[in-house]
Amino acid sequence: MHYLWDEMTLTFSRTSMFPFFDIAHYLVSVMALKRRPGAAAVAWNNPLSSWLSAMLHCFGGGILSCMLLAEPPLKFLTNHTNILLASSIWYIVFFCPRDLVSQGYSYLPIQLLAAGMKEVTRTWKIVSGVTHANSYYRNGWIVMIAVGWARGAGGVIVTSCEELLKGDWKPEGNEWLKLSFPAKVTLLGSIIFTLQHTNHLAMSKHDLMFLYTMFLVTIKITMMITKDTTVTLAPFEDTLSRMLFGWQQQFSLGERKREAKQSSNGTASSGSKRITEDAGSGKRHAKKED
Amino acid sequence: MHYLWDEMTLTFSRTSMFPFFDIAHYLVSVMALKRRPGAAAVAWNNPLSSWLSAMLHCFGGGILSCMLLAEPPLKFLTNHTNILLASSIWYIVFFCPRDLVSQGYSYLPIQLLAAGMKEVTRTWKIVSGVTHANSYYRNGWIVMIAVGWARGAGGVIVTSCEELLKGDWKPEGNEWLKLSFPAKVTLLGSIIFTLQHTNHLAMSKHDLMFLYTMFLVTIKITMMITKDTTVTLAPFEDTLSRMLFGWQQQFSLGERKREAKQSSNGTASSGSKRITEDAGSGKRHAKKED
Amino acid sequence: MHYLWDEMTLTFSRTSMFPFFDIAHYLVSVMALKRRPGAAAVAWNNPLSSWLSAMLHCFGGGILSCMLLAEPPLKFLTNHTNILLASSIWYIVFFCPRDLVSQGYSYLPIQLLAAGMKEVTRTWKIVSGVTHANSYYRNGWIVMIAVGWARGAGGVIVTSCEELLKGDWKPEGNEWLKLSFPAKVTLLGSIIFTLQHTNHLAMSKHDLMFLYTMFLVTIKITMMITKDTTVTLAPFEDTLSRMLFGWQQQFSLGERKREAKQSSNGTASSGSKRITEDAGSGKRHAKKED
Repeated sequence: MHYLWDEMTLTFSRTSMFPFFDIAHYLVSVMALKRRPGAAAVAWNNPLSSWLSAMLHCFGGGILSCMLLAEPPLKFLTNHTNILLASSIWYIVFFCPRDLVSQGYSYLPIQLLAAGMKEVTRTWKIVSGVTHANSYYRNGWIVMIAVGWARGAGGVIVTSCEELLKGDWKPEGNEWLKLSFPAKVTLLGSIIFTLQHTNHLAMSKHDLMFLYTMFLVTIKITMMITKDTTVTLAPFEDTLSRMLFGWQQQFSLGERKREAKQSSNGTASSGSKRITEDAGSGKRHAKKED
Repeated sequence: MHYLWDEMTLTFSRTSMFPFFDIAHYLVSVMALKRRPGAAAVAWNNPLSSWLSAMLHCFGGGILSCMLLAEPPLKFLTNHTNILLASSIWYIVFFCPRDLVSQGYSYLPIQLLAAGMKEVTRTWKIVSGVTHANSYYRNGWIVMIAVGWARGAGGVIVTSCEELLKGDWKPEGNEWLKLSFPAKVTLLGSIIFTLQHTNHLAMSKHDLMFLYTMFLVTIKITMMITKDTTVTLAPFEDTLSRMLFGWQQQFSLGERKREAKQSSNGTASSGSKRITEDAGSGKRHAKKED
Repeated sequence: MHYLWDEMTLTFSRTSMFPFFDIAHYLVSVMALKRRPGAAAVAWNNPLSSWLSAMLHCFGGGILSCMLLAEPPLKFLTNHTNILLASSIWYIVFFCPRDLVSQGYSYLPIQLLAAGMKEVTRTWKIVSGVTHANSYYRNGWIVMIAVGWARGAGGVIVTSCEELLKGDWKPEGNEWLKLSFPAKVTLLGSIIFTLQHTNHLAMSKHDLMFLYTMFLVTIKITMMITKDTTVTLAPFEDTLSRMLFGWQQQFSLGERKREAKQSSNGTASSGSKRITEDAGSGKRHAKKED
């Protein structure tokens, strides 16, 4: 039984992402680009600009991790096979007659399959990021977590900077308060794989890759079917925040309750508002959704 | 005859850009900086800031190509002779009594001479960029095209980022739709020199450098005299776009003509507008000029 | 006497910045972050984002100098001891019960002590930046000045970019006209230490470190006590600007006086305004304060 399990996870960890999983990743990325307002018009008027945006969407995580490790950001352009594959996906998505690809992608089963396969590539990217950072800085576990995180979920930073330079995006302070769900799970995965790599976790890499991938794919598909984006991590986050920061909140909560009682005559509304805010900060997700 | 031609192109390709061609390049770059609103005031109030801007204008392409290849962006500061030359040009342009240099530069023959000599340096930059990228990634032809392009025409990206950080420039989406003419010819040159470097073009490097430089100088001077910026590449671009994307446009054009006929009673004006748009997208230059 | 002096400066130059001077530097940096509007709220809602900002404030100069020399910007994360120390300072400052640390920091003697110790670390950073750049480019004195300057005072650029990406800061053109006082003294120090390193200054490094640190600490504490930010360098700057650029101003001033006399009938107010501007540009500080 244990041998069968080992065989399965080992075979799984040796699966090559090329070509099917990579195709799914490029498809999801380019469709995300296509849904931006005006993207189709840009593809018609300036295909080069549209192609560059598509490449940044497809390879953004790798570009960011290269910049963080002072490697040439253009390194991704040397992998001609993947560039050709991504370019073909871009061409087909944007220039297919009657927009067939977009219509096909609008069916939920297709989206679920592509999203699930893309989550598999996320695991591979985190692992390769952690390993690559370790080759630079042995035992530099913070660097390993950062690079794994960047490679797995850093593409959004690269594409945001591109939109900023194009004038399509004005940064608002609130966006950075809310880590997206992919960013959170990627950070979690990066920490776990770093612990495994530095022998602090008693689990083999292939077992961990299999379990983490199953975790990612399951919650991604569950979220897409139920349209709920914050199911899984909220209890975990609340526990962690209460452990690290909660005792202060309890203390302040108690203090402000006393302040509210003292000033309850003239400032009842503001006092209750403060208590509501303190109670709300313990439940960070609810507060972010407001 | 062939020997004379060979001699001439070989001698031309061995010409050093220092000092006369470099002087012309720095002069054109610093005059472009001076024409920015408020540049003279900045030079008076904060010469250091003005000098930094001038250096970014003069060496911007090299800085960008260094960043793309993960080399120190400060590398250009080690060439003390060129820095001294560029700084002298900056000092003379901004602080000459009675603004003599600007007045001299306003004469068209001087501008033509300087612009022509600057175009010569463009060829040298593209070639050095392509060669340099090849030393990093043998056969990485996409990287070679990108680095040659960056070094030949990338300065505008560096100076745009500087203006963005200074608050003098707000990016508008449309700007990135229109590749400037220098950017287009530099991309073309970068592709040609990469093909030559990877032995896909049966031409020696010095012959190609001579012909490409003559092409650049001729159209630059023609454009400056006739004040027309889009003469040469439009037929080439239209052919290329029709080849790669045109069949889709023809298809859509046919479809929309049928749609327009069907709905011609109630929506005659919008139908004719759509047909005009489709006919217009085949002529991209006309559309961009609107 | 000379031997005692040598002993003292040598011992001083061998002092380790860890832990007390580093603690002071991190404390001043994190308190600067805390005074930003909304920083405490960010710490409650998204501790990770707040921690990242704190790290950028504490290590910004080192990050910038790494980027300028094409070293991994994440290199600072490999020094686990300093990261742990800075993180502890951040945690204590933001999450201390009853905000004790901020209250303690509001006393002037504490601020003076911390600021003085931070200025000592500035000297160490400039020296390490100059030495580090020299290991890359022997005799590249402009690079050495630039890297020393970046490491000593470059943190503000990194944190400004962070605020720009967050949408908390819109760059205004005028900011870049005014080099802050720390930036000016750091540039001065960087130039002096580069001259010493390239043997153009007949002084030993430890003597120079001692004297420059005393200079920094003295004027910093003087400025904090007297609340005056522009005391020391104004005469020096005026002399330098008059030497390099003043003859042109004298010339223009004379010219404009003649123009003003000629047109004094109809344009008296504008003429006197121009003369005031020319007289004002010779005194750059007064003009900047307007």
